[in-house]
Amino acid sequence: MDEHTSHEDQRISDGIDAFKSAFRRHAAGVAIVTAIAPDGAPVGLTVTSLASLAAVPPLATFNMARVATAWPAMTVGNRVAIHMLGARTRSVAQIMAGDHATRFAGDHWYSGPHGLPIIHGATVWIVGRIIEVHPVHNNAVVVVEIEDGELGEPDEALLYHERTYRVPGLPVE
Amino acid sequence: MDEHTSHEDQRISDGIDAFKSAFRRHAAGVAIVTAIAPDGAPVGLTVTSLASLAAVPPLATFNMARVATAWPAMTVGNRVAIHMLGARTRSVAQIMAGDHATRFAGDHWYSGPHGLPIIHGATVWIVGRIIEVHPVHNNAVVVVEIEDGELGEPDEALLYHERTYRVPGLPVE
Repeated sequence: MDEHTSHEDQRISDGIDAFKSAFRRHAAGVAIVTAIAPDGAPVGLTVTSLASLAAVPPLATFNMARVATAWPAMTVGNRVAIHMLGARTRSVAQIMAGDHATRFAGDHWYSGPHGLPIIHGATVWIVGRIIEVHPVHNNAVVVVEIEDGELGEPDEALLYHERTYRVPGLPVE
Repeated sequence: MDEHTSHEDQRISDGIDAFKSAFRRHAAGVAIVTAIAPDGAPVGLTVTSLASLAAVPPLATFNMARVATAWPAMTVGNRVAIHMLGARTRSVAQIMAGDHATRFAGDHWYSGPHGLPIIHGATVWIVGRIIEVHPVHNNAVVVVEIEDGELGEPDEALLYHERTYRVPGLPVE
């Protein structure tokens, strides 16, 4: 196999394949977003899409599927709680990414400010108001302006990479 | 200090402080986005906000400041290259987060598909078309539909956490 052929082999001509290959090699922090649905039920999901948008005013974004049980709660003006997770809450990350019917079955949460479900053991949680929601195909980008929060006990940050929960490792010199 | 007082001390009543505390405890993958500005110049930036939005169709988002030199290139229909970084490209992450005037001074890139600047040594890069741009205050959310890409040599994924570049560490059981 000459160099040219080898190079060609690395090309990914399909968009879905390229997307999957890319995110397989990307590491992401893990967070849990919770809210109250219009019917008063606690809703939530584990996200690896939480991102900073601005510090002033303090804005964050996350992405989600519009088929999620939490979707009806994602309306402008409604509040969400965003929890940063550490290694000690790995099991909660799995619960909130699992069967919708059992995400709030257990004592891993309590009712906090504005009635929002607050996850026990988060390294920090913040509350914000949804200021924009942008549906894109079957998914959506949610923009939140942060209002306040609470610091929890420190812990190693929880990552998701190569289908495995991990903690950060060594600094790269 | 009783338990009640201790608890009160952890509350963060200011939105900016809460935002900063939260993202300080969040780990993020590192990527480089490049494009061609309307004047034909290569532009780019290091982002820690790259997120998956959907797999079908393959959609990704990233957030950026509207004062960035790359901002004029972020128009619907224009293409961008998104590069996933590994430990071996830490220095390029710093270059593309540094002085705008010197981001493309050097041989760390070449002109690839559609004339897009491609960063040498990325673990994978993907090309997509900007399908939506949502300005929010002085920043913006950019939505990209992925078209194709190229796999590079594997490497440990590059993270940014606690103001330090790191690689993923141990799995959390």
